[in-house]
Amino acid sequence: MANLLIIGAGGVSRVATIKCAMNQEVFDKITLASRTKRKCDEIASFIKQRLNVNIHTAEIDADDSEAVVGLIKKSGAEILLNLALPYQDLTLMDACIRAKIHYIDTANYEHPSLAKFEYKEQWARNKSFKDAGILGLLGSGFDPGATNVFCAYAQQNLFDEIHFIDILDCNAGDHGYAFATNFNPEINLREVSAKGRYWQEGRWIETEPMEIKMGWDYPQVGVKDSYLLYHEELESLVKNIKGLKRIRFFMTFSQNYLTHMKCLENVGMLGIKAVKHKGMDIVPIEFLKTLLPDPASLGPRTKGFTNIGCVIRGKKDGQDKQIYIYNVCNHEECFKETGAQAVSYTTGVPAMIGAKLIAQGIWKGKGVFNIEEFEAKPFMDELNSSGLAWKIIEMKPNLGDEKN
Amino acid sequence: MANLLIIGAGGVSRVATIKCAMNQEVFDKITLASRTKRKCDEIASFIKQRLNVNIHTAEIDADDSEAVVGLIKKSGAEILLNLALPYQDLTLMDACIRAKIHYIDTANYEHPSLAKFEYKEQWARNKSFKDAGILGLLGSGFDPGATNVFCAYAQQNLFDEIHFIDILDCNAGDHGYAFATNFNPEINLREVSAKGRYWQEGRWIETEPMEIKMGWDYPQVGVKDSYLLYHEELESLVKNIKGLKRIRFFMTFSQNYLTHMKCLENVGMLGIKAVKHKGMDIVPIEFLKTLLPDPASLGPRTKGFTNIGCVIRGKKDGQDKQIYIYNVCNHEECFKETGAQAVSYTTGVPAMIGAKLIAQGIWKGKGVFNIEEFEAKPFMDELNSSGLAWKIIEMKPNLGDEKN
Repeated sequence: MANLLIIGAGGVSRVATIKCAMNQEVFDKITLASRTKRKCDEIASFIKQRLNVNIHTAEIDADDSEAVVGLIKKSGAEILLNLALPYQDLTLMDACIRAKIHYIDTANYEHPSLAKFEYKEQWARNKSFKDAGILGLLGSGFDPGATNVFCAYAQQNLFDEIHFIDILDCNAGDHGYAFATNFNPEINLREVSAKGRYWQEGRWIETEPMEIKMGWDYPQVGVKDSYLLYHEELESLVKNIKGLKRIRFFMTFSQNYLTHMKCLENVGMLGIKAVKHKGMDIVPIEFLKTLLPDPASLGPRTKGFTNIGCVIRGKKDGQDKQIYIYNVCNHEECFKETGAQAVSYTTGVPAMIGAKLIAQGIWKGKGVFNIEEFEAKPFMDELNSSGLAWKIIEMKPNLGDEKN
Repeated sequence: MANLLIIGAGGVSRVATIKCAMNQEVFDKITLASRTKRKCDEIASFIKQRLNVNIHTAEIDADDSEAVVGLIKKSGAEILLNLALPYQDLTLMDACIRAKIHYIDTANYEHPSLAKFEYKEQWARNKSFKDAGILGLLGSGFDPGATNVFCAYAQQNLFDEIHFIDILDCNAGDHGYAFATNFNPEINLREVSAKGRYWQEGRWIETEPMEIKMGWDYPQVGVKDSYLLYHEELESLVKNIKGLKRIRFFMTFSQNYLTHMKCLENVGMLGIKAVKHKGMDIVPIEFLKTLLPDPASLGPRTKGFTNIGCVIRGKKDGQDKQIYIYNVCNHEECFKETGAQAVSYTTGVPAMIGAKLIAQGIWKGKGVFNIEEFEAKPFMDELNSSGLAWKIIEMKPNLGDEKN
């Protein structure tokens, strides 16, 4: 039995809180806190109606470590599940160190104005976590998260050696708008316009933005244009999957999406600096956000599937072996169950699972860990029973032989 | 010798005023007036430096007929050349009726909030012009303007009967920006999103927006995608070119241009109604104008050509005959001469020519006339000597036989 504090009240938090409430035998008290208490109350009321479970709610400024320590003390929480913004990872980790409670997040720290994805500053807190006798679990979402666990599961159970990994992330949902973004368009832009990067034979190889593209046939979805991007789980998997020769990350973008982003960039609509307009200061990308459909409004109208998984090649009993582990998630079913679509659902469910395995003492340790450092099997079982069933396909071993 | 009042101080007015100043033997006094006197002064100073000709300047609200009558009286003008906005055609025509001076414009009246292009209200002033003993010359720009004169010239000198006319308008200028508009993006949008219309066998045929597209090979430019649009000169040419079987108008748009317009439309950036943004009222298309390069800034950086002309098919001495009359204009040379590029130049030069032929008494009459109702030869000669030389190519007669 554990007392859980969840910070953040967006779509991911909504799903995770609902899923935690479905595990009352594990979480006997759940407090949901965010900058806007009203959002927490709305989620709590949804859960009260659907599941008849009481969720405590509170207002909190996640940038204020002192206030977070106070809330931890007041709520009596033993685990903090961070589903706020990635900008707030460090202040929340520091609050956990001071209050000596376990910490879980789903995305690595980002500096508000530097487009840097790296674990450095979170890993640097390892000793403080050890000294405090607490566990910090980094990246317990889907990617990072479930994808890392897929790799760990393959390493622990299916292969003697793993040589090649491709992580393949496809959102084939259709919201029916000519153009809309699932989340902050600025972060979307950053992904599309950033240089790509992958790891091969001990070194990082940089590509031009969207330089490497392939048509990948996603089960239950079909062939989709997939672009090589840098993604944060590559950094930890390179450390934790031994014997690796190459690891890459691909994400789907439709031509329509890319064309809109390019046109908006060309006219200056993605600018992050204020522009003088009739005496007013207008930040173009903020005005674009005002014009675009609210991401939250996409939930009820999004149809179709996500498919996220890993293709892994290596050796087993001296033979070449290649498998594809993936989950397919249905936007409409997610929305029916939680009021959020699959992009939030696929992140929120693994966040609950990480918290659950720590609460149950199945995953334990002192210090800061990436999710693939733990035994994968219990997490894989929880995915199957919590709405994110996965499949494994055996493939003809060719990953690493193709030309790009 | 005539005393001329020019209203408006944009790019077209700049070119026309310079060209009038080059015809001092015709225009002994030129007054340039607009809402912003500073713009008039800048043009006057350019002309003083380059040509050592004095231009009088004044501030005027072209929407205020009373004030315009006052300015006509004060300046002693005998001809008013209207290069203000098309919204102001009627107030300026009415001022000319009251002051009893000749009137010339380059574009037909538009209601500020109705997207209607038609001559009805201007033609309705025919009797008042007759009674006042003055001449109103409508559409003395390039299209309408030179293109109408090309048709009149063909009718008067080259054909016994004209059956088919295609007017072909190509701006192949390159300003080096990913996206920019030569003029108000709202008017651009209106053209692109409006239904097309052409005249055939006595009736108007409507098409979907951009439905009819052809690749046309423009001399000195090459093949460009050309789209059938409605354009105002069709209305008067149908009346004034006897025996016509079909007349159409085509304009070039690049795929890049159309893609940007579509994407901007999709996200709501072409909206003309205010949107609430952080407590401010922002009209999207106005903010887009703020973001886009100022059309005036395109002049110094635009390279390449315009090619506007008419393909005309009919009978001469019992034989099928087809000709292509066109002008090619070089953006950089126009800018060097006048400080404005070819889009302004091709309109401003014919505006001067219309005023000159009236001032010289070569074109005369009482009432309201479209430009093709006069003898074409003197206008054609002036085009050649004023910077808009034209060519005539004989073609294999096939216009009207092609399938669309």
